[in-house]
Amino acid sequence: KKTYKIAVIRGDGIGPEIVDEAIKVLDSVCSHENFELHYEEYLMGGVAYDFKGTPLPDETIEGCLKADAVLFGAIGGQKWDTLPREFRPETGLLKLRKSLRLFANLRPTAIFDELLDASTLKPEVLKGVDLLVVRELIGGIYFGEPRGNDGFKGYNTMVYTKPEIERIAHVAFESAMKRRKEVCSVDKANVLEVSQLWRDTVNEIAKEYPEVTLTHMYVDNAAMQLVRNPRQFDVILTGNIFGDILSDEASMISGSIGLLPSASMGGKVGLFEPIHGSAPDIAGQGIANPLATILSASMMLRFALGEEKAADRIEMAIKKVLHDGYRTKDLANYGAKEVCSTTQIGSIIADYV
Amino acid sequence: KKTYKIAVIRGDGIGPEIVDEAIKVLDSVCSHENFELHYEEYLMGGVAYDFKGTPLPDETIEGCLKADAVLFGAIGGQKWDTLPREFRPETGLLKLRKSLRLFANLRPTAIFDELLDASTLKPEVLKGVDLLVVRELIGGIYFGEPRGNDGFKGYNTMVYTKPEIERIAHVAFESAMKRRKEVCSVDKANVLEVSQLWRDTVNEIAKEYPEVTLTHMYVDNAAMQLVRNPRQFDVILTGNIFGDILSDEASMISGSIGLLPSASMGGKVGLFEPIHGSAPDIAGQGIANPLATILSASMMLRFALGEEKAADRIEMAIKKVLHDGYRTKDLANYGAKEVCSTTQIGSIIADYV
Ligand SMILES: CC(C)[C@H](C(=O)O)[C@@H](O)C(=O)O
Ligand SMILES: CC(C)[C@H](C(=O)O)[C@@H](O)C(=O)O
Repeated sequence: KKTYKIAVIRGDGIGPEIVDEAIKVLDSVCSHENFELHYEEYLMGGVAYDFKGTPLPDETIEGCLKADAVLFGAIGGQKWDTLPREFRPETGLLKLRKSLRLFANLRPTAIFDELLDASTLKPEVLKGVDLLVVRELIGGIYFGEPRGNDGFKGYNTMVYTKPEIERIAHVAFESAMKRRKEVCSVDKANVLEVSQLWRDTVNEIAKEYPEVTLTHMYVDNAAMQLVRNPRQFDVILTGNIFGDILSDEASMISGSIGLLPSASMGGKVGLFEPIHGSAPDIAGQGIANPLATILSASMMLRFALGEEKAADRIEMAIKKVLHDGYRTKDLANYGAKEVCSTTQIGSIIADYV
Repeated sequence: KKTYKIAVIRGDGIGPEIVDEAIKVLDSVCSHENFELHYEEYLMGGVAYDFKGTPLPDETIEGCLKADAVLFGAIGGQKWDTLPREFRPETGLLKLRKSLRLFANLRPTAIFDELLDASTLKPEVLKGVDLLVVRELIGGIYFGEPRGNDGFKGYNTMVYTKPEIERIAHVAFESAMKRRKEVCSVDKANVLEVSQLWRDTVNEIAKEYPEVTLTHMYVDNAAMQLVRNPRQFDVILTGNIFGDILSDEASMISGSIGLLPSASMGGKVGLFEPIHGSAPDIAGQGIANPLATILSASMMLRFALGEEKAADRIEMAIKKVLHDGYRTKDLANYGAKEVCSTTQIGSIIADYV
């Protein structure tokens, strides 16, 4: 029997609860498929700071690098927000992404027909939306030097080199080849030199994908078009901060940020996490929605382990659960026949698998 | 009779058409009020490049500085997009903002009940939305040094100094005092040092406005909350690029970007312009919506000239025109009794004034 090693980072807030449900579902999948998953837990985020004095202990990096994939919950919370920057949970996450060379962050937004009404956008605008944000994750203004704040002047540098742009562009074009063959590259080339290099480089890479249609859009316009007509997008290719903003905005299309998974790839080992945060305000109450994490686990099976059939099983189980009217509290008003706790819905999905 | 000098920049694309309608309406207002407006035209944008070899001739800056206010249409177009950066229309606009020291860009988003259906957001989400984006306009990554692109590496610097943040924070708090007394400051302080300085400085200024409630929000979350529940916002205070993105996104709330005016203030002379662009694809067809420009003219009367009554007249005329079912083509599907051309709707508003 094939065996994969999964590094598990549960993190802070609702992180542990939702990761537990994902593991429950994965275990159920394994019992029907011809592979096994071995989990090893690592600390990261606020909990790591509390226990180890650092948001990202070395053994976490090492453990992740030795695994076949990383399953990640969520990190952060007000409690740690006033710490010096180097000790904050977010700093640990950024360092982990960098250490694992996860330069490509894939954030799909698809509509579950059962939840069409949950969005604040009109159903007729949403029907058929199926887009993928490909966000560069270890460059741009998140990591650019020089950076600093001396109390009078604060500064950060948005920087990209050509190879950095090329490799993320390839990811976008290759994703598009498996989809509707359209890439919209988002930048602010009318103002920023770094965006001009971005645009020029993307144009060059596009020549290697003659079947893909490439368009360019300014980021302000993209923020508008995502609300005006999200259906126009197939793959959105963009840098770190623009991708951060646009993918969160795009998540509202699906009606709940509790539904959206993500995959971070590029290095030897991929990391899979929901795009939502650690929601400390609802932690421990059993009302968190684990679907985004379970969908992230499905992305892990598909993209990191190549277990397509197992991934399909999970996605189909989730569709059926939604179709049958099981909902967590956040979606109680949208077609719920039964409102479930975090563990209940996890168990039902595990059953349906 | 009081006389004000208005510098008029018609610009490119639909710019000339929509500015003409604004002037028509202003003239009508003057005929009922106790002041006169004298217009002086200046070239800027692509048209200035074509005639003078520069997107911002010196006489335009000088003329604006001698005026009581600047009324601005729109600039830009594909035709000039491949010019070296210094010759592009956008570069002229940024230089004009800088020369006039227009550090505060005010972008209100209010809902016209008659057009509730025009938005892709559900009416129940929109009802009662009334928010103001206060965007810093002559700092941040738009102007930060160093900047460059050598074909291998592209970079820009997001930089703010404390005094720059203080003065824009004052504008936001003072605006809030005239409104619902809530400021939401938007940044990315969990990642960026420049945002940490922004947040710390805004917190300090807040102490001078004890009646105003201040909250902070990360920009990714703000992009999401604007779609999820725009009613939660009164004044949004933010930097140049985040304000660019969020205000365009917020414009979708109103259903058409053709409705949103803006005021840029801070120096001796204010500049008033629609937030939409020059829309070269529909230029010269008589179908452009002049409402945003006419509303910008109303903001000019109110904020630059102190002619509140005259400003009210314009706003009431626009409400009545919408109520009576006159619509330009972009809004033809939303309660139109009569679809009007650009000049027709301008004339009707001028009549109603
Ligand atoms: C928590 C934060 C540092 C992070 C980011 O900005 O990348 C988050 O918003 C995300 O999108 O994963
Ligand atoms: C045209 C462009 C330079 C400008 C900006 O980014 O400021 C525009 O988008 C705006 O918001 O006024």
